[in-house]
Amino acid sequence: MSEPLRHSALLTDLYELTMAAAYFENNFRGQASFELFVRSLPKERSFLLTAGLEQVLDYLEQIHFEDDDIEYLRAQPIFSHVSNSFFEYLKGFRFSGEVWAIPEGTPVFGEEPLLRITAPILEAQIVETFLISTITFETLIASKAGRVVGAAQGRGVVEFGSRRAHGPEAGVLAGRAAFIGGCTGTSNVEAGRRFGVPIYGTLAHSFLMAYQDEEKGFRDFEKLFPEHAVLLIDTYDTLDAIEKIGRAGLRPLAVRLDSGDLAQLSKQVRRRLDQVGLHETKIFASSDLDEFVIADLLAQGAPIDNFGVGSALATSKDAPTLGGVYKLVDVETDKGPSYRAKFSENKVTYPGRKQIFRFRDENGTFREDLIACEDEIHDGEPLLTCVMRDGKRLAPSPPLQTIRTRARQQIADLPEALRELQPPIKGYPVRFSRTLESLLAEAKQRMGVV
Amino acid sequence: MSEPLRHSALLTDLYELTMAAAYFENNFRGQASFELFVRSLPKERSFLLTAGLEQVLDYLEQIHFEDDDIEYLRAQPIFSHVSNSFFEYLKGFRFSGEVWAIPEGTPVFGEEPLLRITAPILEAQIVETFLISTITFETLIASKAGRVVGAAQGRGVVEFGSRRAHGPEAGVLAGRAAFIGGCTGTSNVEAGRRFGVPIYGTLAHSFLMAYQDEEKGFRDFEKLFPEHAVLLIDTYDTLDAIEKIGRAGLRPLAVRLDSGDLAQLSKQVRRRLDQVGLHETKIFASSDLDEFVIADLLAQGAPIDNFGVGSALATSKDAPTLGGVYKLVDVETDKGPSYRAKFSENKVTYPGRKQIFRFRDENGTFREDLIACEDEIHDGEPLLTCVMRDGKRLAPSPPLQTIRTRARQQIADLPEALRELQPPIKGYPVRFSRTLESLLAEAKQRMGVV
Repeated sequence: MSEPLRHSALLTDLYELTMAAAYFENNFRGQASFELFVRSLPKERSFLLTAGLEQVLDYLEQIHFEDDDIEYLRAQPIFSHVSNSFFEYLKGFRFSGEVWAIPEGTPVFGEEPLLRITAPILEAQIVETFLISTITFETLIASKAGRVVGAAQGRGVVEFGSRRAHGPEAGVLAGRAAFIGGCTGTSNVEAGRRFGVPIYGTLAHSFLMAYQDEEKGFRDFEKLFPEHAVLLIDTYDTLDAIEKIGRAGLRPLAVRLDSGDLAQLSKQVRRRLDQVGLHETKIFASSDLDEFVIADLLAQGAPIDNFGVGSALATSKDAPTLGGVYKLVDVETDKGPSYRAKFSENKVTYPGRKQIFRFRDENGTFREDLIACEDEIHDGEPLLTCVMRDGKRLAPSPPLQTIRTRARQQIADLPEALRELQPPIKGYPVRFSRTLESLLAEAKQRMGVV
Repeated sequence: MSEPLRHSALLTDLYELTMAAAYFENNFRGQASFELFVRSLPKERSFLLTAGLEQVLDYLEQIHFEDDDIEYLRAQPIFSHVSNSFFEYLKGFRFSGEVWAIPEGTPVFGEEPLLRITAPILEAQIVETFLISTITFETLIASKAGRVVGAAQGRGVVEFGSRRAHGPEAGVLAGRAAFIGGCTGTSNVEAGRRFGVPIYGTLAHSFLMAYQDEEKGFRDFEKLFPEHAVLLIDTYDTLDAIEKIGRAGLRPLAVRLDSGDLAQLSKQVRRRLDQVGLHETKIFASSDLDEFVIADLLAQGAPIDNFGVGSALATSKDAPTLGGVYKLVDVETDKGPSYRAKFSENKVTYPGRKQIFRFRDENGTFREDLIACEDEIHDGEPLLTCVMRDGKRLAPSPPLQTIRTRARQQIADLPEALRELQPPIKGYPVRFSRTLESLLAEAKQRMGVV
């Protein structure tokens, strides 16, 4: 695996920097705590699977402003009244704060803080945009992968939606997140190099179209990749292609179907493969698959061994955004209590730093979660742990395979209804603690909100 | 504007590299032409607006393999039978081909090639994944922006969905594409620095929550940004916040509403602003907006001057993928004609290099498009032009503002029904030329497909 990617400190919204300037100029330097969460699950999801924390920690350890970042900012008219000292401050800017987070590969629900930052308010503010987009995107894809892999009932699923992802870098993150969610691997080579995700790929229609002589194309390809060849057989005539493979004496690892009625076709293909003695050759299917299509294919008894899933997975097409937010919950000031809450219509934020406790029933299945103040004591398993202090990781990154294994076990511990493709009417129970409800009421009263 | 971002050559699907190896080992080095297109528009769209070409040309001019890219590939078991010469070839790999493309900011439709690559087949293949994801993602966002900006009827629209984009880099590309589609600018600072997109931003709820004393927060902020302050007024009590602004004698550029019933609230806010003498202060609204909500707000007479649009725009939420493809249409070989076609079920590809001719009616409105063979001669305006030869751009990049202006003019030239939010039942007419239909029939016959 290679070095973490260097990220520009300008990967942020302008208002993070205008607020930072205003804090700086007004000597507002208190420690602030922000919590990152999703207000409610998309209606297409029963749970989310956390991912993206490692990229966030990489970013926090390395964020700094280059001279030309600062020159760019200085030249913007909006900053014309900001003093030179602020830009000097940016030159020395580093993230020096503390991070509490839920480990990657954990099922989570609406309102639950996935991450909490405590840092001087300027630092906590500037990193907001990167943190939300990284955590929510990887969580989005890991969650979708969990569903698709579940539908495949133990058959392998390869993520290969890079070309349909939202730009080349989104494809890399999608490859990582899909692996956490249970995929066997990805087609994205950079995801392999950067994160150690297993990579898969064979050949496209273009290869056989270039050769024109399909049989020669198959032969040349299998000769070069004898243990790995997955031959695409639907460029011209699918069943005829199997005859050619048989005639040439090839023994491909698998054949791939990428069009047509996959249920019917896979049965014909299986029969024909067996007829020509290719009992060991697997069937790999792709073509606009998602969890529902896969479930339907298997219900029809399609003898498909592995699935390749593209657009639906790499864009989480049915629910392409989580609406993640990052809310101030506590800030040190000269006077008054430090906890903070927000009361905008339909956008209430509970005050204070929190912990989530997860309770299991007598069979070990997750029963309910309690969102409480950080210093409350409850029996359940606390989900947030401290992963960074003074801007440094407290432990090395867990291997990606460990995160993936954890995710599989955690999904197995969910109530069965949550693993169905159709989300249950009554979702997983998440409550706020009585102490937290009292604190919210107190905050409302203090701010004069009824 | 800064230097183009360096992109890893491994931002590709593994099968591009296995095919490249197979071409190499079998001495298959002919020139190939691939065309990039979208088979059909999402049902939510009446047209697409092209974007992303400049990032593709940057990439093609700089793509090369670093030593550690090659070491990574060499270590993959799938490449164990590939000769050393292939990896030596990758060391010297550069893109040496030709690119024809439709200029950015042009309305396009299903089946129309947005881009054509002609290059040695290995080169054309390796760049596929990057090209599709870049062009289709930026086109997706520019197209969505065109709709949102149209719905705003001349009021400004700022893209500020970076936090909801599919990772931090998707946010940067979204900021650029949204500007091409007609947005006033973006909140994404890196999009400003990298591409020269105007950047906007003011303050978040967290700022006023940190201050607790809302009025002091407003004062400190406006003092620092006297010409640019957009004060967010819904953190506690919206109308009360205006009293505070009036009392403090502030004259903000605008106030921002981010929650509640925006139609009703904006009317109350306008009245209250006028009552305290802030006639010049504009109203900026955000909160889960899209083209339909904006149209509805304006139909209700909401006195909103500018809109901020996030998730819906930066993820093209209602249609989050275009399903772009990149198909081989021609390849030099020893024998037989060079054009290529594909006949998989529902996935037919027309053979040969193409040109698109666009015809206008007597008022100058676009009437229909004709997809023809590249050497056909027709009256209409040819959309594809040569932009790169021998791997080098033929002209410097047009300024982004020029692309944006072109897009606005081009959208104005579309038939009116296509500018409605609801796509018409009968879409824009796109025909294939008789010559192209004959070529397809000939290809079918030659390949024995009925």
